[in-house]
Amino acid sequence: MSLDENSWFTEVYPEAGAALSLRTEEKLHEERSAYQKIEVYRTAGFGNLLVLDGFVMLTARDNFIYHEMMTHPALFCHPRPESVLIVGGGDCGCLQEVLKHESVVRVDQAELDERVTRVSERFFPDLCASNDDHRANLHFVDGIRWVEDAAPDSYDVIIVDSTDPIGQAARLFQAPFYGACRRALGDTGVLIVQSESPLLHLDLIKSIRWEMAAAGFQHLKTVNFPQCTYPSGWWSATMAGKSIGLESFRETDASTRRFATRYYNASIHGAALAEPEFMRAALEVRT
Amino acid sequence: MSLDENSWFTEVYPEAGAALSLRTEEKLHEERSAYQKIEVYRTAGFGNLLVLDGFVMLTARDNFIYHEMMTHPALFCHPRPESVLIVGGGDCGCLQEVLKHESVVRVDQAELDERVTRVSERFFPDLCASNDDHRANLHFVDGIRWVEDAAPDSYDVIIVDSTDPIGQAARLFQAPFYGACRRALGDTGVLIVQSESPLLHLDLIKSIRWEMAAAGFQHLKTVNFPQCTYPSGWWSATMAGKSIGLESFRETDASTRRFATRYYNASIHGAALAEPEFMRAALEVRT
Repeated sequence: MSLDENSWFTEVYPEAGAALSLRTEEKLHEERSAYQKIEVYRTAGFGNLLVLDGFVMLTARDNFIYHEMMTHPALFCHPRPESVLIVGGGDCGCLQEVLKHESVVRVDQAELDERVTRVSERFFPDLCASNDDHRANLHFVDGIRWVEDAAPDSYDVIIVDSTDPIGQAARLFQAPFYGACRRALGDTGVLIVQSESPLLHLDLIKSIRWEMAAAGFQHLKTVNFPQCTYPSGWWSATMAGKSIGLESFRETDASTRRFATRYYNASIHGAALAEPEFMRAALEVRT
Repeated sequence: MSLDENSWFTEVYPEAGAALSLRTEEKLHEERSAYQKIEVYRTAGFGNLLVLDGFVMLTARDNFIYHEMMTHPALFCHPRPESVLIVGGGDCGCLQEVLKHESVVRVDQAELDERVTRVSERFFPDLCASNDDHRANLHFVDGIRWVEDAAPDSYDVIIVDSTDPIGQAARLFQAPFYGACRRALGDTGVLIVQSESPLLHLDLIKSIRWEMAAAGFQHLKTVNFPQCTYPSGWWSATMAGKSIGLESFRETDASTRRFATRYYNASIHGAALAEPEFMRAALEVRT
């Protein structure tokens, strides 16, 4: 059957020969910012949907998995995260999760496109509820330059919540950027980057790990999690420890955390690090 | 955008307000068996695709995850699985995985529709490569009646590889059937049933566990895994132990297994049992 394009938003994944469609009830917003086309739809089953240049960024229904898994595994691997940088992350979902950690005293967010944040504040207020937290500092700047300009040892955790490795964002997946991150991190620092689908983009995951290793990171772990509205429904983030192995997980702290999560918990932390057999085979040369 | 229905197969998930499309290159087969419409497509990105009554059953590319996770967790929880029953499973993907276990001396498969198996033999020969194994016994019969007629204590593991709980298949999700399975299992027997999407069908998972408990099973575990071409890209199976707790996992045997897998391994076994926070909260009343 074919889907009426007036009542469905469709994202085609050309390299996979697949497409995901979400039934829409209304287009709530459309604009062209200085950087991209921003659309928001109200969907029938997934709440509000944010689309950038035709790519699904998030839905109200399932973004909790992505945002929790982009943040808590890294923060619970650091002995005491106080200073955190988010590169990208304009929807503020990661920011909100980071601010749940009581040890955090400062979060810088370097998002290029202020309009993404302003649109998110309007249509995804749940994600932006902590934007006024006194610890949160929103900078609308180029994230790569921000990291390059950062003082050495200035961050405990750096989270790269980027779009796909296309155009300018491709530099976020390469060794020079990871090297700048490494310099900006303290000795016990942890870097975590979104690293696409284990099923569809295994070569990219290998490449990210290779580039991280080339930048001097010796401790690498890829975290897997479901993400319904991204290609293949299965996604990953890759973590790198500057000097600490990532078995530094503060399991007791994660188990006794005093904040709410919907996906992450101490069991899921370990589970997400388990490598399916085809990943283990593909990645073992590199670790 | 809209997708040309001549070059895309689309399955709509009405209750989720979502749809998955796979780009097709050719329809290889179409028939109406006594029970259902059977179609096979060659897709651009996922190899051959089997469709029953409009629902994606499997693709060549991603079925390995489902078939490995429907079998190995249960077989490695049983102390020594020798006699196995598969209810449904006409594509023979589960059968092939079960036969990898050297301890297995007999597998009965009770699939209603012989045509599913014959079509699979033709278009998914990799899945059917073990169909001639002397331990495999293909019965084209009603699976519920097969279980009801089975002698007590005749199986070590029962695998319910069914379609969605619609029409006749709904009975496969209810206590009377689970009770019959329980009687057919030996004391250390393990039942495993496909139990749909944790994100979309949590109420069904709760219901399955409730029905299993009502049938006398006291040890329940839900196994989660990615499954790209099923609704939400995230799927589950629920295991029930007749008398043994499912911490009976033979971890050393799984780690030293002498057969190849592509998704399952000993780490994944444990990881798949980890409950995301929202599942833990929803299921804790029942376990």
